[in-house]
Amino acid sequence: MPKIITISREFGSGGREIGKRLSEELDFAYYDQEIIKEICKQTGMNENFVNEVSERAITLVANQFGHTFYNQQQIDILVSQQKIIQELAKKGDCVIVGHGCAEILADQHPFSIFVYASMEAKVKRCRLKGPEEEKLTDKELVRKIKDVDKNRKKIHEMIAPTKWGEKENYDLCLNTTHIEIKEVIPGLAKYIQECL
Amino acid sequence: MPKIITISREFGSGGREIGKRLSEELDFAYYDQEIIKEICKQTGMNENFVNEVSERAITLVANQFGHTFYNQQQIDILVSQQKIIQELAKKGDCVIVGHGCAEILADQHPFSIFVYASMEAKVKRCRLKGPEEEKLTDKELVRKIKDVDKNRKKIHEMIAPTKWGEKENYDLCLNTTHIEIKEVIPGLAKYIQECL
Repeated sequence: MPKIITISREFGSGGREIGKRLSEELDFAYYDQEIIKEICKQTGMNENFVNEVSERAITLVANQFGHTFYNQQQIDILVSQQKIIQELAKKGDCVIVGHGCAEILADQHPFSIFVYASMEAKVKRCRLKGPEEEKLTDKELVRKIKDVDKNRKKIHEMIAPTKWGEKENYDLCLNTTHIEIKEVIPGLAKYIQECL
Repeated sequence: MPKIITISREFGSGGREIGKRLSEELDFAYYDQEIIKEICKQTGMNENFVNEVSERAITLVANQFGHTFYNQQQIDILVSQQKIIQELAKKGDCVIVGHGCAEILADQHPFSIFVYASMEAKVKRCRLKGPEEEKLTDKELVRKIKDVDKNRKKIHEMIAPTKWGEKENYDLCLNTTHIEIKEVIPGLAKYIQECL
């Protein structure tokens, strides 16, 4: 059975960097943006749109008669995402970041990691890494970080009976507040190999 | 400055075993029962009593006139414990288990670990490790595990403004539900060394 590492993370905590570096260290496949690309292929939707929507909680839309409905395109994206993640996980050893991967693959018993950090550290990381975030004030950036995580939490709770970010749902919870990610990858990889 | 690793843990999760093995792997001093022994020396109290009391929340005792007071012996033990932990941490690199060590040593920036597991795994571990627990029914054992942790939580909240077991207060949260502790020590030690 393939070895699967899933990474769930707070926005700005460096979870994606950990996933990418871990996959290189362990020589595992790495899936993140590939999932979005595959959804676009299967649904014919635009990549920017899918990117935007895949991390938003499903919204209700009102029609001209005042009736509200779930947004069908969002539902299609989430359903498609689930199938794609399950297919990718069958291909071989891999690291999958985000997209509710820990919950979608629960039956395959992945090694599940949750990455988090203090708000101060997340703001600092966003400033260093994200060109988009450069234009935001600190206040706007904090709001963005909270909004993204609020949506991740909502999506998680739509597809799993557990709570997003609660340590009980993960094998390891990593606080990146005081660490230099690239320095700790060899040890982290060794620990995970011993667990898998 | 000495390197300090603190281990806080749920009862039955194997936190003490992790601490002991980590200290051997890293060649760090290990403090756990030493703290109790030192309290006995300094206060003149009995070891069994100190052992029992050091993990219980401070209780209120009523006098003959119906007035309630804090239990002074318990307060003495907690105060003594804080001093001893701070003295030990100055001596050199060490692993300290329990006794609110993460909070007492916060200013020394220890690498703080919280160890936890599913209730099923904790019951199983208690059955394997604890001679005292052999006589208890499963229901009694679950109650004991919950009671011990409830007391640890209360003590934590007396000495720190944070919540016991909340991942934000630790550098690493380790779920021992699916792991064989002795197998994962080299990787864990390597990760911590990279962080320290």
